[in-house]
Amino acid sequence: MGHREQVSAALTAFLDERAVDLAPLGDDAARLLEEVRAGVDGGKRFRALFCAWGYRAVEPEPIDPQALARAGAALEMLHASALVHDDLMDGSDTRRGRPATHRGFEARHRAEGWPGDTSRAEQYGAAAAILAGDLMLSWSDQLLRTCGLPWERVGPALAVFDDCRTEVVAGQFLDVSVQARGRADVDTAMTVLRYKSAKYSVERPLHVGAALAGAGPAVLDALTAFGLPVGEAFQLRDDLLGVYGDPAVTGKPAGDDLVEGKRTVLVALALEHAPAADAAVLDAALGTPLSVAEVARLREIVTASGAQARVESLIEDLTARAMDALAQAPVSDVAREALRDLAVAATQRTV
Amino acid sequence: MGHREQVSAALTAFLDERAVDLAPLGDDAARLLEEVRAGVDGGKRFRALFCAWGYRAVEPEPIDPQALARAGAALEMLHASALVHDDLMDGSDTRRGRPATHRGFEARHRAEGWPGDTSRAEQYGAAAAILAGDLMLSWSDQLLRTCGLPWERVGPALAVFDDCRTEVVAGQFLDVSVQARGRADVDTAMTVLRYKSAKYSVERPLHVGAALAGAGPAVLDALTAFGLPVGEAFQLRDDLLGVYGDPAVTGKPAGDDLVEGKRTVLVALALEHAPAADAAVLDAALGTPLSVAEVARLREIVTASGAQARVESLIEDLTARAMDALAQAPVSDVAREALRDLAVAATQRTV
Repeated sequence: MGHREQVSAALTAFLDERAVDLAPLGDDAARLLEEVRAGVDGGKRFRALFCAWGYRAVEPEPIDPQALARAGAALEMLHASALVHDDLMDGSDTRRGRPATHRGFEARHRAEGWPGDTSRAEQYGAAAAILAGDLMLSWSDQLLRTCGLPWERVGPALAVFDDCRTEVVAGQFLDVSVQARGRADVDTAMTVLRYKSAKYSVERPLHVGAALAGAGPAVLDALTAFGLPVGEAFQLRDDLLGVYGDPAVTGKPAGDDLVEGKRTVLVALALEHAPAADAAVLDAALGTPLSVAEVARLREIVTASGAQARVESLIEDLTARAMDALAQAPVSDVAREALRDLAVAATQRTV
Repeated sequence: MGHREQVSAALTAFLDERAVDLAPLGDDAARLLEEVRAGVDGGKRFRALFCAWGYRAVEPEPIDPQALARAGAALEMLHASALVHDDLMDGSDTRRGRPATHRGFEARHRAEGWPGDTSRAEQYGAAAAILAGDLMLSWSDQLLRTCGLPWERVGPALAVFDDCRTEVVAGQFLDVSVQARGRADVDTAMTVLRYKSAKYSVERPLHVGAALAGAGPAVLDALTAFGLPVGEAFQLRDDLLGVYGDPAVTGKPAGDDLVEGKRTVLVALALEHAPAADAAVLDAALGTPLSVAEVARLREIVTASGAQARVESLIEDLTARAMDALAQAPVSDVAREALRDLAVAATQRTV
């Protein structure tokens, strides 16, 4: 069984235990749990993989692979929680090909013919999504704490996990505030990217894994020198896919980030470097419904501004910096090789 | 310094540390933190007090009062998180005399003149409240884990805390689902009350404290035999205050629970025992805007149904059962006395 499958098995085993706890609460709680199961199903499991290789950087052959899988499951649970709350905040309709959590419960309200108008169904869906995310957030640290490794390993990993949770929520709030203001300079967009994504998706998962293996400050610093630029490049790739991605491959609408009005680093660069007339068109179009032709026109503006090329070049620089750091890092050779492959997969992906 | 003040000081000290962590994220994060400070300010601190006396049931003179205050702060942080998310889910405008978190950030959006219509401001307020609650939820277990007591004490307390978080969120979801269906029999209303309030507000705080003092199963069971009926009586008192409470004392509108359409045990009893015509009037009025005269009319229906007397009698029975359990419990005499007073304060209050 590969690590991804072990992580999925750890999630299933954990949720089976929670189903027993929640049985006295009846059908509603059972439905909430089913939604959590769906929420942690699928995904690329990048965070669990970075956690596993952060561990193996220190201890190449884990003495307890199941415990390590459960720690990875903690990061995936945290991520699933963030996605459920994110989709609600963004008003997204779908996630991984199924209705977003709030939409699913909203549909249940309608299907059951419960009293009240559409706004009551929406309110129910929102409440269910808030509570499902809260449950998953609670369960994430529970998973890590009870992963099965001794406390002198788990304690330091939980301290990293604390930072990780604080950073991602604060980063999300900065993002939400930037979107609300309707403007972000490149620096601010970069801060959002660092906290909401780079630290949370790569650096901190590496640290959690390394801490579980008993890593000292030198290893943690080396993993930052590698992980932070990889995480930044990972999210910059996401920014590009959000504008240029092929809907047939990404499963998201064309120009999704433009329709949602996301003030990404890519968009901030385009607004900064495009001719004033182009920048005004782009700025006005962000966050509005867009036809295929309009998306194509905005893509042209972003490309012509040089922002696409700048971001590709940033990804290249960051990846090179990460690879240099990795080459010198005091980590096991098996981890060095795996982390190199993982960095390529995270930054060169098409989905 | 009394225990309440020590808990407040522990919260302040913890949030001062978080302010340092969040400084790189700038003004938006600082505002979020200010909102968290306001959210944990005030309140009756019942949960921290039950935690402290659960501890002192086992160890009458705590060796580390500051650690115990920090553990109590964890429960207060969890509670503040639940209130922020609750107020958003319920669409409440105020909390403890100030705007509810989502309303505060909504007002900020308008005051700053950020782009978009009212719905954009509402969306911003909702997102801010979701994230503020997430931050507080994350910080609650961090506070407990880092309270300063040795791990062999903290580990078992965190296991109780896990159950507590799961129970309260699942109980809230059952509550939300019951409200959405627009009906609840007395049994279902009692299950909601037990999970959302009795276990969460009294039984589990006692257990967290006792576990921190190294309690074994006999003490935990005795604290359940005392704490669960106290918790139920505590919430039944809340149900009565939600219908009969004096706005000048509670700070909430008259008949607040009726306007919000809460399907409490009190309301379920009234609907079950009132004459059909009265029950229909009550059922139709729940969850609609109500004049003072209409609230008075509904109160009469609830009273005439015998539901008020039944709930008062239930509170009396539960309190008597709790006091019997307390008299026989293997706890210190100082805790026995304090817990008796606390039970009276929780169940006989007018606010």
